[in-house]
Amino acid sequence: MAAGVGTILPPGVSADDFAAVLRQFEAAVGKDWVFTNDEDIHPYRDYFSILKDQNDELVPSAAVCPASVEEVQAVVRAANRFKVPLYAISTGKNFAYGGPAPNLRGSVTVDLKRMNRVLEIDERRNFALVEPGVSYMDLYRYIEERGLKVMIDTADVGWGGLMGNALDRGLGYTLGLYRDHISAHYGMEVVLPDGELMRTGMGAMPGSKAWQEYKHGFGPDPSGLFAQGNYGIVVKMGFRLMPRPEHWRTGLITVPKRADFIPLVDTVNYLSDLFVIGEPLYSSPLQSLLTDPEFQKAAIAFDEAALDRIAAANNRHSWQVELQFYGSEKSTLANWEWAKELILRAVPQANCFDGDSLKVPVTQAQIDAAEHPYPAPYTSVMRRNVMHGVPKLYMWRSPGRTDNDPNSWNETHIGLFSVVARSGEAVFQAQKDFADVVRRSRPGEQYVSAALITPLQWHQFGFFIGNSFFGTATRNDNSPEGKLKQLKELRAVLKMNAQLGYGDYRAPPILQDDVADQYSFNNHQLRRFNEALKDAIDPNGILSPGRGGIWPKAHRANRGALRK
Amino acid sequence: MAAGVGTILPPGVSADDFAAVLRQFEAAVGKDWVFTNDEDIHPYRDYFSILKDQNDELVPSAAVCPASVEEVQAVVRAANRFKVPLYAISTGKNFAYGGPAPNLRGSVTVDLKRMNRVLEIDERRNFALVEPGVSYMDLYRYIEERGLKVMIDTADVGWGGLMGNALDRGLGYTLGLYRDHISAHYGMEVVLPDGELMRTGMGAMPGSKAWQEYKHGFGPDPSGLFAQGNYGIVVKMGFRLMPRPEHWRTGLITVPKRADFIPLVDTVNYLSDLFVIGEPLYSSPLQSLLTDPEFQKAAIAFDEAALDRIAAANNRHSWQVELQFYGSEKSTLANWEWAKELILRAVPQANCFDGDSLKVPVTQAQIDAAEHPYPAPYTSVMRRNVMHGVPKLYMWRSPGRTDNDPNSWNETHIGLFSVVARSGEAVFQAQKDFADVVRRSRPGEQYVSAALITPLQWHQFGFFIGNSFFGTATRNDNSPEGKLKQLKELRAVLKMNAQLGYGDYRAPPILQDDVADQYSFNNHQLRRFNEALKDAIDPNGILSPGRGGIWPKAHRANRGALRK
Repeated sequence: MAAGVGTILPPGVSADDFAAVLRQFEAAVGKDWVFTNDEDIHPYRDYFSILKDQNDELVPSAAVCPASVEEVQAVVRAANRFKVPLYAISTGKNFAYGGPAPNLRGSVTVDLKRMNRVLEIDERRNFALVEPGVSYMDLYRYIEERGLKVMIDTADVGWGGLMGNALDRGLGYTLGLYRDHISAHYGMEVVLPDGELMRTGMGAMPGSKAWQEYKHGFGPDPSGLFAQGNYGIVVKMGFRLMPRPEHWRTGLITVPKRADFIPLVDTVNYLSDLFVIGEPLYSSPLQSLLTDPEFQKAAIAFDEAALDRIAAANNRHSWQVELQFYGSEKSTLANWEWAKELILRAVPQANCFDGDSLKVPVTQAQIDAAEHPYPAPYTSVMRRNVMHGVPKLYMWRSPGRTDNDPNSWNETHIGLFSVVARSGEAVFQAQKDFADVVRRSRPGEQYVSAALITPLQWHQFGFFIGNSFFGTATRNDNSPEGKLKQLKELRAVLKMNAQLGYGDYRAPPILQDDVADQYSFNNHQLRRFNEALKDAIDPNGILSPGRGGIWPKAHRANRGALRK
Repeated sequence: MAAGVGTILPPGVSADDFAAVLRQFEAAVGKDWVFTNDEDIHPYRDYFSILKDQNDELVPSAAVCPASVEEVQAVVRAANRFKVPLYAISTGKNFAYGGPAPNLRGSVTVDLKRMNRVLEIDERRNFALVEPGVSYMDLYRYIEERGLKVMIDTADVGWGGLMGNALDRGLGYTLGLYRDHISAHYGMEVVLPDGELMRTGMGAMPGSKAWQEYKHGFGPDPSGLFAQGNYGIVVKMGFRLMPRPEHWRTGLITVPKRADFIPLVDTVNYLSDLFVIGEPLYSSPLQSLLTDPEFQKAAIAFDEAALDRIAAANNRHSWQVELQFYGSEKSTLANWEWAKELILRAVPQANCFDGDSLKVPVTQAQIDAAEHPYPAPYTSVMRRNVMHGVPKLYMWRSPGRTDNDPNSWNETHIGLFSVVARSGEAVFQAQKDFADVVRRSRPGEQYVSAALITPLQWHQFGFFIGNSFFGTATRNDNSPEGKLKQLKELRAVLKMNAQLGYGDYRAPPILQDDVADQYSFNNHQLRRFNEALKDAIDPNGILSPGRGGIWPKAHRANRGALRK
C-alpha cells in the first residue's frame, strides 16, 4: 500500500476542514459517490507512475463522482469554501500521459464518468454534443445503433473519451480538421471556478440553434484556455463529425533515394492542404536492414551515399508514404491518380502501388484483414479501424510483439512527441539533432535508427516526432531507482530538445512543468499571462493546480516541486 | 467641423497629462507620426458614422503610428503611465463595421499600417507570417511577383488586411478552413497591455521552426481572446495558405420546389463537410418575380403551394446553388459528377448545369468575363476574383446598380449578419421570423422578399443571414434625426432577433454592446468571465476599452452609454 494513500490531506487543508468538505461533497452527490479509502482511490492513481508508492506519488486525497452539472457546481462551491484543490477527469485511461493522477498530490479527483449522455447528434448538419463521460465506443455504438451517416475520429483505444481527449489536444487519423480534436470542437459549457456556468460560442446566446455550427460567437473567445488548462470544468462539448464518405481508397508511394524524402513531403503537403487526403503515413522500408552492421554504420554516420547504395543493393526504396482518400469511388480514384501524377512529376523514379478500394462502411472482416495489398519488401502500417472511425479495445502494437516483450511499452511508459517543421529538410535535421541528444545524454550509446525516423502527421498541418530514443537503457528497470533515473533522463532530454527548438505538445503531470518550461519566449511571458488570468478567475486556486504548467498563486510554490 | 474634434481629451485625462503623453508618443515614434489636429485625425473617423459631427461621435483624441514592435511597446507603456485609452487598428477601411473609429470617444488611435512587411512565406509548407499593415493586395502582389504556388483567401476588397480582418472574424470564399480567417490563423505575437511581448503556439518556444504549423503549443491557448477582443495589440500573425490547385470548376444545381431546399442544403452540407467543395452560393431564381403582385402575395403569406405553382408557370426552379471545386481537372470533374449524382438521388427533378472549367491560375480576362455559363432564367452570383484569391479594389454591387442608386449601400450603412442553423428548415423558420420582426418593428410594412432569403455559407460550418430588412424606410434619410431613428431601429431589431435565437457575429463599435447583450446565457456569464480576465491583465483599462463588448473596470460605466 502506498505511503499515506487514503490518509493524506489536500495541501493546506486541516483534517477538520477536509472532513467538512467531504460531508458537503456527500450532500451534493450522495454518500455512495465520495471515495476516500485506499481501495476506492486506487483507480485514480497512475498505474504506470514513475513515483509509484513513493511519498510524492501524485495521489488524490479523495474522489467524488457528480452525476449532473448541478452536482459539479455544488462540488466546486464546496471546494471553494475550504480551498480544497480539485482535479477533474472524464473517462478513458490516459495511458502514457499520467493516467488519472492529478498534478498536485492530495487534490480531490472529480470523476465525471457518470455524465455520459450523447445530448444531440445530427447526421444532416454533422455534429454531436456530448457529456464528459461519453467514450469513443459509446458514441460509435450510438451512431451504429441508429444507422447514422456520420463518422467519428477516434483515438487509438475506444475507451478514451471525446472530451478528455480533445481537452488534452489528442489527435486522430481521418481527414483534415476532424483529426485535430480540439479544433473540431464547436462549443463548450463550463463550470467555472466559482461554480457559475458559462457557454462559449453560440451557446452563450439563449435559443440559438447553431451552437455546434459557429464556434466563435461574438467578442473574445476564451475556449482555448480550457484545453490543457485549469480555468473550468467542461461539462458539455460539441464536436464536428465527418460525414460518412461512400468510398475509401489507399495507395502506397515509395521513393528510392534518401534525398527524395524532401519532394515526397512537399507533394504530400500539397495534397493534404487541399484536403485531398486523410492522414498520410510515412515510414522507411529500410527499417528491416537495421540489423546489418554495414547499414548500421552508414545510418549512424548519416552517410547518404552509403545508405542509398545499400538500399539499392537490397532492391528497395528508402521512403514510403501511404495515402488515404475519402470520397466517392470515382473521386477517390481521380484523387489517387492525381497524387501519382504529382509524385512522378517530382520524383520520376517513384513507385506507386494501388492499395485498398473499399465501399464504406467497411465490414469488420475488411477491418480485421491481416494481409496488406503491397508487394514485398513493402509493408503497410495502416490501421484500418481508426481510419474508419471504428474504435477498438486494444493498443497498437508492432506485429509480433506482446505486452511482455521487453521491446513493447513497459510499466514506466510515458509519451513524448516533439513538434517539428513540416519539410524533409526539417526531418533530416531532427534526425541528426535527436541522434546527438542521445550521444550527449548517454555517452557511448548510439541512436542507430535515427536516420530512419519519419514524422507523424496526426495534426492537420504539423509534424510530430516521438521521442522514443531515450528509453532503451533504463526502460526495463522498474525499481524505484531505475524509474527515477529514467525521469531524470527524460527531463534532461526535454531541456536539450528545447535548446534545439523542439517543444512537446503534450505531457503527463510529472513532466508538465518541464514541457511548459520549453515555451519560454520573453521570460515565460505566455505562462505569466495565463497565470494572471488564472488568479483572476480562480483566486483560491482550487481547479487542477499545475495542469498545463499553470499554477495558481496559492500553489505556485509547487512549480517544479517534483524535480527535486 | 465636428464639435470638439481635435480638442477633445481622452476620458479622465487632464490637458497636462495628455500633452505629456503626446510628448512621450513623439519620443517613441517621432514627431511626424503623432497626429492631433482635425485634418490629420479625419481619416480616423467613421466615414459612415450614424453620429457624424454629433458630440458623441466616436472620434479619437489623437493618432500615433508606430513603425516597429518596439515602438508599439513604447506607446503602450506611455499610455499606461497616464491611463490613456488606446485603440489599435491595422489597415483597410472596415466599411459597414464602423471604419477606424474607436469604441470610446477620445481614445488615441494606434495605427499600425506602417508595419507592413511579409515576414515569411513558404510555398512548400503553405503559410505566411505577416505584420498588421499587410493588405490582401500586398500579399497577392508579393506572391505574384515571386510566382509562388499558394493562394490567399481575400476579403471582398483588396485594401483590407489579413490581420485586421481575421481579428474581426472576417470570412472569405475559398475552401473550408481557409475562408474562416481566424481559424486559419497559426500563431500570434502580441504586445500586452503592460508593454510585454508574448507569442502564442509554437512561437512561445524560442528556436521552434513550426510556429505556423501547429497552433496550440503547450498548455492553455489564449489566442482566441485577441479576436474581437482587447487583451493586446497583435503585431505578427501567421496564416495557413491554400496551395494553388491545378484546376477550378463550377456547376449550378437548381431544384424545382420550395421544399426541395431542405434536401439541397443537406446535400451541400455533405459535400462541404468532406471538403469536396469551396464556398457554395445559394440564391433563388424567383427573385425576379418579386415585381409580380400575385407572387408578392404568395411570398408574404409563405404560401408554399402558390409559390411552387407560380415558379412552375414561369418555367423556373425555386432554388439554386453554385458549387465550386478546387483540384485537378479530373478530380474536380469526378467531384462535380458525384455532386450531381447525390442531388439527383435526393431531388430527382433537380437540374445540373456545367459551369466554368478553368486551368489555374486563371487569367485576368477569365476573371473579368461578364458572361456566365448558365441558361436563362438562371444567373450566376459567383465572383470569380475572390474565388481565386485575387483581390480587387471595388466593393461588390448588384449588376446595374451604382453608388448613387438608392438601392445600393447608402451613407449610414452598417453590416449585420445573424448566425442561423445550417438546415433548410432553419432557413425557412428564419425567413418567417425575420418577416415577423419587420412587421413588428414597422407596422404596415411587409418584408416582401423574406420567403426568398438564402443563407451565406462564408463560414465553413455555419449559415449567416444578412439583416438587410431593416433598411428600407430610413436608409435614405441622412439627416442627424434620420440616422438616429435608424440606429434606434437597429437596436430594437437586435433585441427581437436575440429573443428568437439569432445572434450576430460582428458589429460596428456603436452596436457592439447591443450584440454582446444578445449573448446573455446565465446573466452574461461569458462577458463577466472575459471582463474578469481583462481587469487582470489590463488594470488601467488602456487597450481598446469596449471592443467586443468588453469594458475594463476604469471605463465600465460606458457600457451602453451611446444608447441614451
